[in-house]
Amino acid sequence: MNPLMRRTIEIATDKRETLVDITREVQTVVSDSGIENGLVSVYAQGATGAIMIQENWDDSVQIDVINLLRQMIPRGVWLHDRQDGNGDAHLKAGLIGPSETIPIIAARLGLSQWQNIFFCEFDGPRRRRNIVCSIIADS
Amino acid sequence: MNPLMRRTIEIATDKRETLVDITREVQTVVSDSGIENGLVSVYAQGATGAIMIQENWDDSVQIDVINLLRQMIPRGVWLHDRQDGNGDAHLKAGLIGPSETIPIIAARLGLSQWQNIFFCEFDGPRRRRNIVCSIIADS
Amino acid sequence: MNPLMRRTIEIATDKRETLVDITREVQTVVSDSGIENGLVSVYAQGATGAIMIQENWDDSVQIDVINLLRQMIPRGVWLHDRQDGNGDAHLKAGLIGPSETIPIIAARLGLSQWQNIFFCEFDGPRRRRNIVCSIIADS
Repeated sequence: MNPLMRRTIEIATDKRETLVDITREVQTVVSDSGIENGLVSVYAQGATGAIMIQENWDDSVQIDVINLLRQMIPRGVWLHDRQDGNGDAHLKAGLIGPSETIPIIAARLGLSQWQNIFFCEFDGPRRRRNIVCSIIADS
Repeated sequence: MNPLMRRTIEIATDKRETLVDITREVQTVVSDSGIENGLVSVYAQGATGAIMIQENWDDSVQIDVINLLRQMIPRGVWLHDRQDGNGDAHLKAGLIGPSETIPIIAARLGLSQWQNIFFCEFDGPRRRRNIVCSIIADS
Repeated sequence: MNPLMRRTIEIATDKRETLVDITREVQTVVSDSGIENGLVSVYAQGATGAIMIQENWDDSVQIDVINLLRQMIPRGVWLHDRQDGNGDAHLKAGLIGPSETIPIIAARLGLSQWQNIFFCEFDGPRRRRNIVCSIIADS
Protein backbone atom coordinates (compact mmCIF):
# COMPACT_ATOMS: atom_id res chain seq x y z
CA MET A 1 0.00 0.00 0.00
CA ASN A 2 0.92 3.64 -0.23
CA PRO A 3 2.37 4.42 3.22
CA LEU A 4 1.20 8.02 2.95
CA MET A 5 -2.43 6.89 3.00
CA ARG A 6 -2.40 5.48 6.52
CA ARG A 7 -0.42 6.49 9.56
CA THR A 8 -0.75 5.68 13.25
CA ILE A 9 -0.46 8.60 15.65
CA GLU A 10 1.08 7.57 18.97
CA ILE A 11 0.44 9.61 22.09
CA ALA A 12 1.02 9.26 25.81
CA THR A 13 -1.57 10.28 28.43
CA ASP A 14 -0.79 11.58 31.90
CA LYS A 15 -4.08 11.20 33.82
CA ARG A 16 -6.75 8.58 34.33
CA GLU A 17 -9.27 10.70 32.41
CA THR A 18 -8.25 13.41 29.96
CA LEU A 19 -9.00 14.73 26.49
CA VAL A 20 -5.93 15.17 24.26
CA ASP A 21 -6.19 17.46 21.23
CA ILE A 22 -4.83 15.56 18.20
CA THR A 23 -6.04 17.96 15.49
CA ARG A 24 -2.55 19.11 14.51
CA GLU A 25 -1.27 15.54 14.26
CA VAL A 26 -4.21 14.48 12.07
CA GLN A 27 -3.73 17.57 9.86
CA THR A 28 -0.07 16.57 9.41
CA VAL A 29 -1.14 13.11 8.21
CA VAL A 30 -3.55 14.76 5.77
CA SER A 31 -0.92 17.24 4.54
CA ASP A 32 1.73 14.57 4.09
CA SER A 33 -0.66 12.45 2.02
CA GLY A 34 -0.85 15.15 -0.65
CA ILE A 35 -4.60 14.49 -0.96
CA GLU A 36 -6.63 17.58 -1.82
CA ASN A 37 -10.14 16.20 -1.40
CA GLY A 38 -11.53 13.12 0.28
CA LEU A 39 -11.98 11.82 3.80
CA VAL A 40 -9.88 10.91 6.79
CA SER A 41 -11.04 8.16 9.12
CA VAL A 42 -9.71 8.52 12.67
CA TYR A 43 -9.82 5.29 14.73
CA ALA A 44 -8.69 4.87 18.35
CA GLN A 45 -7.37 1.42 19.24
CA GLY A 46 -7.94 0.28 22.82
CA ALA A 47 -11.31 -0.42 24.43
CA THR A 48 -10.96 2.31 27.09
CA GLY A 49 -10.32 5.26 24.75
CA ALA A 50 -12.45 7.11 22.19
CA ILE A 51 -12.54 9.93 19.65
CA MET A 52 -14.67 13.05 20.21
CA ILE A 53 -15.04 16.17 18.05
CA GLN A 54 -15.33 19.08 20.47
CA GLU A 55 -14.57 22.78 21.01
CA ASN A 56 -11.04 23.79 21.99
CA TRP A 57 -11.24 27.53 22.81
CA ASP A 58 -9.94 26.66 26.27
CA ASP A 59 -10.10 23.52 28.41
CA SER A 60 -13.53 24.20 29.96
CA VAL A 61 -15.52 21.93 27.65
CA GLN A 62 -12.94 19.17 28.02
CA ILE A 63 -13.30 19.25 31.81
CA ASP A 64 -17.07 19.37 31.45
CA VAL A 65 -16.95 16.24 29.27
CA ILE A 66 -15.03 14.32 31.93
CA ASN A 67 -17.33 15.51 34.71
CA LEU A 68 -20.49 14.70 32.75
CA LEU A 69 -19.29 11.17 32.03
CA ARG A 70 -18.29 10.68 35.69
CA GLN A 71 -21.82 11.62 36.73
CA MET A 72 -23.44 9.40 34.13
CA ILE A 73 -21.12 6.43 34.65
CA PRO A 74 -19.75 6.22 38.22
CA ARG A 75 -16.75 4.08 39.18
CA GLY A 76 -16.81 0.82 41.06
CA VAL A 77 -20.42 -0.30 40.56
CA TRP A 78 -20.10 -2.46 37.42
CA LEU A 79 -19.82 -6.22 36.91
CA HIS A 80 -16.59 -5.74 35.01
CA ASP A 81 -15.00 -3.97 37.99
CA ARG A 82 -14.50 -7.38 39.65
CA GLN A 83 -11.97 -8.16 36.91
CA ASP A 84 -10.13 -4.99 36.01
CA GLY A 85 -11.63 -2.19 38.11
CA ASN A 86 -12.17 -0.19 34.93
CA GLY A 87 -15.77 -0.97 34.03
CA ASP A 88 -16.61 2.74 33.84
CA ALA A 89 -13.79 3.32 31.33
CA HIS A 90 -15.17 0.65 28.98
CA LEU A 91 -18.67 2.08 29.21
CA LYS A 92 -17.49 5.62 28.49
CA ALA A 93 -15.42 4.42 25.52
CA GLY A 94 -18.33 2.45 24.09
CA LEU A 95 -20.73 5.36 24.44
CA ILE A 96 -18.45 7.91 22.73
CA GLY A 97 -17.07 5.46 20.18
CA PRO A 98 -13.62 5.01 18.62
CA SER A 99 -14.23 6.33 15.09
CA GLU A 100 -14.98 9.64 13.40
CA THR A 101 -14.83 10.35 9.66
CA ILE A 102 -13.96 13.91 8.61
CA PRO A 103 -13.94 15.52 5.15
CA ILE A 104 -10.70 16.74 3.56
CA ILE A 105 -11.42 19.99 1.70
CA ALA A 106 -8.63 21.69 -0.27
CA ALA A 107 -5.99 19.70 1.63
CA ARG A 108 -7.32 20.79 5.04
CA LEU A 109 -9.50 19.04 7.62
CA GLY A 110 -13.09 20.10 6.97
CA LEU A 111 -13.68 21.08 10.59
CA SER A 112 -15.50 24.27 11.51
CA GLN A 113 -13.72 27.04 13.40
CA TRP A 114 -14.30 25.59 16.86
CA GLN A 115 -14.20 21.88 16.07
CA ASN A 116 -11.08 20.00 17.14
CA ILE A 117 -10.35 16.28 17.26
CA PHE A 118 -9.73 14.79 20.70
CA PHE A 119 -8.52 11.45 21.91
CA CYS A 120 -10.47 10.66 25.08
CA GLU A 121 -8.48 8.75 27.68
CA PHE A 122 -10.68 6.98 30.24
CA ASP A 123 -8.16 4.57 31.83
CA GLY A 124 -4.78 6.31 31.90
CA PRO A 125 -2.12 7.23 32.36
CA ARG A 126 -0.79 5.22 29.43
CA ARG A 127 2.62 5.40 27.84
CA ARG A 128 1.18 4.69 24.42
CA ARG A 129 -2.17 5.06 22.74
CA ASN A 130 -2.52 4.37 19.00
CA ILE A 131 -4.84 6.33 16.73
CA VAL A 132 -5.01 5.02 13.16
CA CYS A 133 -5.61 7.70 10.50
CA SER A 134 -6.68 6.40 7.07
CA ILE A 135 -6.96 8.73 4.08
CA ILE A 136 -9.48 8.15 1.29
CA ALA A 137 -8.89 10.15 -1.87
CA ASP A 138 -11.78 11.58 -3.85
CA SER A 139 -12.32 9.12 -6.70
CA MET B 1 -12.03 17.29 -7.74
CA ASN B 2 -15.29 16.04 -9.16
CA PRO B 3 -17.87 18.49 -7.72
CA LEU B 4 -20.54 15.80 -7.78
CA MET B 5 -18.65 13.80 -5.16
CA ARG B 6 -18.98 16.33 -2.35
CA ARG B 7 -21.71 18.83 -1.60
CA THR B 8 -22.53 20.91 1.46
CA ILE B 9 -26.18 20.98 2.52
CA GLU B 10 -27.12 24.29 4.12
CA ILE B 11 -30.07 24.47 6.48
CA ALA B 12 -31.55 27.00 8.91
CA THR B 13 -32.90 26.04 12.33
CA ASP B 14 -35.75 27.77 14.14
CA LYS B 15 -35.41 26.63 17.77
CA ARG B 16 -32.67 26.23 20.37
CA GLU B 17 -33.02 22.44 20.23
CA THR B 18 -34.55 20.62 17.30
CA LEU B 19 -33.99 17.64 15.00
CA VAL B 20 -34.18 18.44 11.27
CA ASP B 21 -34.75 15.60 8.82
CA ILE B 22 -32.16 15.89 6.03
CA THR B 23 -32.72 12.47 4.43
CA ARG B 24 -34.18 13.89 1.22
CA GLU B 25 -31.31 16.36 0.81
CA VAL B 26 -28.69 13.64 1.33
CA GLN B 27 -30.51 11.37 -1.15
CA THR B 28 -30.40 14.20 -3.71
CA VAL B 29 -26.63 14.47 -3.28
CA VAL B 30 -26.36 10.70 -3.77
CA SER B 31 -28.64 10.75 -6.83
CA ASP B 32 -26.81 13.67 -8.45
CA SER B 33 -23.47 11.90 -8.03
CA GLY B 34 -24.59 9.09 -10.30
CA ILE B 35 -22.92 6.58 -7.98
CA GLU B 36 -24.69 3.22 -7.81
CA ASN B 37 -22.77 1.62 -4.96
CA GLY B 38 -20.48 2.96 -2.26
CA LEU B 39 -20.80 5.10 0.83
CA VAL B 40 -21.86 8.59 1.81
CA SER B 41 -20.20 10.27 4.77
CA VAL B 42 -22.40 12.90 6.44
CA TYR B 43 -20.50 15.43 8.58
CA ALA B 44 -22.01 18.33 10.56
CA GLN B 45 -19.75 21.36 10.95
CA GLY B 46 -20.20 23.35 14.15
CA ALA B 47 -19.42 22.14 17.67
CA THR B 48 -23.04 22.48 18.90
CA GLY B 49 -24.73 20.31 16.27
CA ALA B 50 -24.64 16.59 15.47
CA ILE B 51 -25.93 13.86 13.16
CA MET B 52 -28.32 11.15 14.41
CA ILE B 53 -29.97 8.29 12.54
CA GLN B 54 -33.46 7.95 13.98
CA GLU B 55 -37.08 7.01 13.25
CA ASN B 56 -39.30 9.52 11.47
CA TRP B 57 -42.79 8.03 11.56
CA ASP B 58 -43.89 11.17 13.39
CA ASP B 59 -42.09 13.66 15.62
CA SER B 60 -42.48 11.73 18.89
CA VAL B 61 -38.99 10.20 18.91
CA GLN B 62 -37.45 13.54 17.95
CA ILE B 63 -39.10 15.22 20.96
CA ASP B 64 -38.06 12.30 23.16
CA VAL B 65 -34.43 12.74 22.02
CA ILE B 66 -34.44 16.40 23.04
CA ASN B 67 -36.09 15.65 26.38
CA LEU B 68 -33.71 12.78 27.17
CA LEU B 69 -30.66 14.94 26.46
CA ARG B 70 -32.11 17.78 28.58
CA GLN B 71 -32.46 15.38 31.50
CA MET B 72 -28.99 13.93 31.04
CA ILE B 73 -27.25 17.26 30.41
CA PRO B 74 -29.00 20.19 32.17
CA ARG B 75 -28.34 23.84 31.27
CA GLY B 76 -26.32 26.33 33.27
CA VAL B 77 -24.22 24.03 35.46
CA TRP B 78 -21.06 23.65 33.33
CA LEU B 79 -17.68 25.37 33.44
CA HIS B 80 -18.09 26.44 29.83
CA ASP B 81 -21.33 28.29 30.67
CA ARG B 82 -19.24 31.11 32.15
CA GLN B 83 -18.02 31.84 28.62
CA ASP B 84 -20.84 31.19 26.20
CA GLY B 85 -23.78 29.89 28.22
CA ASN B 86 -23.97 26.89 25.90
CA GLY B 87 -21.98 24.24 27.74
CA ASP B 88 -24.89 21.80 27.51
CA ALA B 89 -25.00 22.20 23.71
CA HIS B 90 -21.33 21.27 23.36
CA LEU B 91 -21.74 18.22 25.57
CA LYS B 92 -24.81 17.02 23.65
CA ALA B 93 -23.01 17.51 20.33
CA GLY B 94 -19.92 15.62 21.52
CA LEU B 95 -21.97 12.73 22.85
CA ILE B 96 -24.02 12.23 19.66
CA GLY B 97 -21.13 13.05 17.31
CA PRO B 98 -20.96 14.90 13.98
CA SER B 99 -20.42 12.00 11.55
CA GLU B 100 -22.34 9.01 10.23
CA THR B 101 -21.35 6.83 7.26
CA ILE B 102 -24.19 5.22 5.30
CA PRO B 103 -24.06 2.66 2.47
CA ILE B 104 -25.26 3.54 -1.04
CA ILE B 105 -27.06 0.52 -2.50
CA ALA B 106 -28.38 0.67 -6.09
CA ALA B 107 -28.16 4.48 -6.08
CA ARG B 108 -30.25 4.77 -2.89
CA LEU B 109 -29.33 5.41 0.73
CA GLY B 110 -29.03 2.02 2.44
CA LEU B 111 -31.30 3.04 5.31
CA SER B 112 -33.98 0.71 6.63
CA GLN B 113 -37.65 1.63 6.36
CA TRP B 114 -37.76 3.70 9.54
CA GLN B 115 -34.25 5.14 9.54
CA ASN B 116 -33.92 8.79 8.60
CA ILE B 117 -30.94 11.14 8.85
CA PHE B 118 -31.32 14.07 11.23
CA PHE B 119 -29.26 17.16 11.90
CA CYS B 120 -29.47 17.79 15.65
CA GLU B 121 -29.48 21.49 16.59
CA PHE B 122 -28.51 22.10 20.22
CA ASP B 123 -27.78 25.85 20.17
CA GLY B 124 -30.16 27.47 17.69
CA PRO B 125 -31.86 29.16 16.11
CA ARG B 126 -29.18 29.52 13.43
CA ARG B 127 -29.51 31.03 9.99
CA ARG B 128 -27.05 28.57 8.56
CA ARG B 129 -25.76 25.13 9.47
CA ASN B 130 -23.45 23.27 7.08
CA ILE B 131 -23.55 19.51 6.59
CA VAL B 132 -20.80 18.15 4.32
CA CYS B 133 -21.81 15.07 2.29
CA SER B 134 -18.92 13.13 0.71
CA ILE B 135 -19.53 10.27 -1.73
CA ILE B 136 -17.17 7.31 -2.00
CA ALA B 137 -17.67 5.14 -5.06
CA ASP B 138 -17.29 1.38 -4.87
CA SER B 139 -13.79 0.69 -6.17
CA MET C 1 -20.45 -3.52 -8.53
CA ASN C 2 -17.93 -5.99 -7.22
CA PRO C 3 -20.01 -8.24 -4.91
CA LEU C 4 -16.98 -8.88 -2.73
CA MET C 5 -16.87 -5.23 -1.70
CA ARG C 6 -20.20 -5.21 0.13
CA ARG C 7 -21.98 -7.93 2.03
CA THR C 8 -24.88 -7.93 4.45
CA ILE C 9 -24.46 -9.97 7.61
CA GLU C 10 -27.78 -11.40 8.82
CA ILE C 11 -28.20 -12.34 12.46
CA ALA C 12 -31.05 -13.34 14.78
CA THR C 13 -31.37 -12.05 18.34
CA ASP C 14 -32.93 -13.95 21.23
CA LYS C 15 -33.61 -11.28 23.88
CA ARG C 16 -35.12 -7.80 24.06
CA GLU C 17 -31.70 -6.32 24.85
CA THR C 18 -28.45 -8.05 24.01
CA LEU C 19 -25.03 -7.43 22.48
CA VAL C 20 -24.03 -9.89 19.74
CA ASP C 21 -20.36 -10.21 18.82
CA ILE C 22 -20.07 -9.97 15.01
CA THR C 23 -16.27 -9.58 14.79
CA ARG C 24 -15.73 -12.95 13.16
CA GLU C 25 -18.41 -12.32 10.55
CA VAL C 26 -16.97 -8.88 9.67
CA GLN C 27 -13.46 -10.39 9.45
CA THR C 28 -14.82 -12.99 7.01
CA VAL C 29 -16.21 -10.22 4.79
CA VAL C 30 -12.81 -8.49 4.91
CA SER C 31 -10.93 -11.72 4.14
CA ASP C 32 -13.22 -12.66 1.25
CA SER C 33 -12.73 -9.23 -0.33
CA GLY C 34 -9.02 -9.88 -0.77
CA ILE C 35 -8.32 -6.27 0.28
CA GLU C 36 -5.04 -5.87 2.15
CA ASN C 37 -5.38 -2.25 3.29
CA GLY C 38 -8.32 0.13 3.50
CA LEU C 39 -11.43 0.50 5.61
CA VAL C 40 -14.59 -1.39 6.44
CA SER C 41 -17.76 0.52 7.21
CA VAL C 42 -20.19 -1.43 9.42
CA TYR C 43 -23.80 -0.16 9.30
CA ALA C 44 -26.77 -1.58 11.24
CA GLN C 45 -30.13 -1.23 9.53
CA GLY C 46 -33.16 -0.82 11.80
CA ALA C 47 -33.83 2.15 14.10
CA THR C 48 -33.73 0.06 17.31
CA GLY C 49 -30.27 -1.47 16.87
CA ALA C 50 -26.74 -0.07 16.87
CA ILE C 51 -23.04 -0.89 16.50
CA MET C 52 -20.63 -0.64 19.46
CA ILE C 53 -16.93 -1.43 19.67
CA GLN C 54 -16.36 -2.99 23.09
CA GLU C 55 -14.30 -5.49 25.08
CA ASN C 56 -15.12 -9.17 24.79
CA TRP C 57 -12.97 -10.91 27.43
CA ASP C 58 -16.17 -12.21 28.94
CA ASP C 59 -19.77 -10.97 28.96
CA SER C 60 -19.43 -8.62 31.94
CA VAL C 61 -19.02 -5.41 29.93
CA GLN C 62 -21.88 -6.39 27.65
CA ILE C 63 -24.21 -6.81 30.63
CA ASP C 64 -22.91 -3.53 32.07
CA VAL C 65 -23.74 -1.76 28.78
CA ILE C 66 -27.34 -2.98 28.89
CA ASN C 67 -27.73 -2.05 32.57
CA LEU C 68 -26.22 1.41 32.08
CA LEU C 69 -28.55 2.17 29.20
CA ARG C 70 -31.56 0.90 31.18
CA GLN C 71 -30.67 3.32 33.99
CA MET C 72 -30.11 6.24 31.62
CA ILE C 73 -33.15 5.55 29.44
CA PRO C 74 -35.99 3.84 31.36
CA ARG C 75 -38.91 2.10 29.64
CA GLY C 76 -42.46 3.37 29.35
CA VAL C 77 -41.99 7.09 29.98
CA TRP C 78 -41.53 8.40 26.40
CA LEU C 79 -43.94 10.04 23.97
CA HIS C 80 -43.17 7.37 21.41
CA ASP C 81 -44.30 4.64 23.82
CA ARG C 82 -47.91 5.54 23.02
CA GLN C 83 -47.34 4.20 19.52
CA ASP C 84 -44.97 1.27 19.73
CA GLY C 85 -43.98 0.85 23.36
CA ASN C 86 -40.33 0.93 22.30
CA GLY C 87 -39.35 4.57 22.81
CA ASP C 88 -36.40 3.56 24.96
CA ALA C 89 -35.07 1.29 22.19
CA HIS C 90 -35.07 4.17 19.68
CA LEU C 91 -33.29 6.47 22.11
CA LYS C 92 -30.62 3.88 22.92
CA ALA C 93 -30.05 3.19 19.21
CA GLY C 94 -29.75 6.90 18.38
CA LEU C 95 -27.31 7.51 21.21
CA ILE C 96 -24.97 4.62 20.30
CA GLY C 97 -25.39 5.06 16.55
CA PRO C 98 -25.57 2.56 13.66
CA SER C 99 -22.16 3.08 12.03
CA GLU C 100 -18.51 2.45 12.83
CA THR C 101 -15.59 2.63 10.39
CA ILE C 102 -12.62 0.37 11.10
CA PRO C 103 -9.19 0.21 9.40
CA ILE C 104 -8.12 -2.88 7.45
CA ILE C 105 -4.42 -3.49 8.09
CA ALA C 106 -2.62 -6.36 6.31
CA ALA C 107 -5.97 -8.01 5.51
CA ARG C 108 -7.10 -7.98 9.17
CA LEU C 109 -9.46 -5.74 11.10
CA GLY C 110 -7.35 -3.03 12.75
CA LEU C 111 -8.90 -3.63 16.16
CA SER C 112 -6.77 -3.73 19.29
CA GLN C 113 -6.49 -6.90 21.35
CA TRP C 114 -9.65 -6.32 23.39
CA GLN C 115 -11.80 -4.52 20.85
CA ASN C 116 -14.61 -6.49 19.28
CA ILE C 117 -17.52 -5.38 17.10
CA PHE C 118 -21.00 -5.81 18.59
CA PHE C 119 -24.48 -5.46 17.20
CA CYS C 120 -26.61 -3.96 19.98
CA GLU C 121 -30.19 -5.23 20.03
CA PHE C 122 -32.55 -2.95 21.94
CA ASP C 123 -35.96 -4.24 20.76
CA GLY C 124 -35.65 -7.97 20.22
CA PRO C 125 -35.97 -10.81 19.90
CA ARG C 126 -35.81 -10.49 16.11
CA ARG C 127 -35.54 -13.24 13.55
CA ARG C 128 -33.42 -11.07 11.29
CA ARG C 129 -31.18 -8.04 11.71
CA ASN C 130 -29.14 -6.76 8.76
CA ILE C 131 -25.66 -5.29 9.13
CA VAL C 132 -24.20 -3.90 5.90
CA CYS C 133 -20.40 -4.20 5.61
CA SER C 134 -18.79 -2.06 2.89
CA ILE C 135 -15.10 -2.39 2.01
CA ILE C 136 -13.04 0.55 0.78
CA ALA C 137 -9.69 -0.35 -0.76
CA ASP C 138 -6.65 1.81 -0.21
CA SER C 139 -6.40 3.94 -3.35
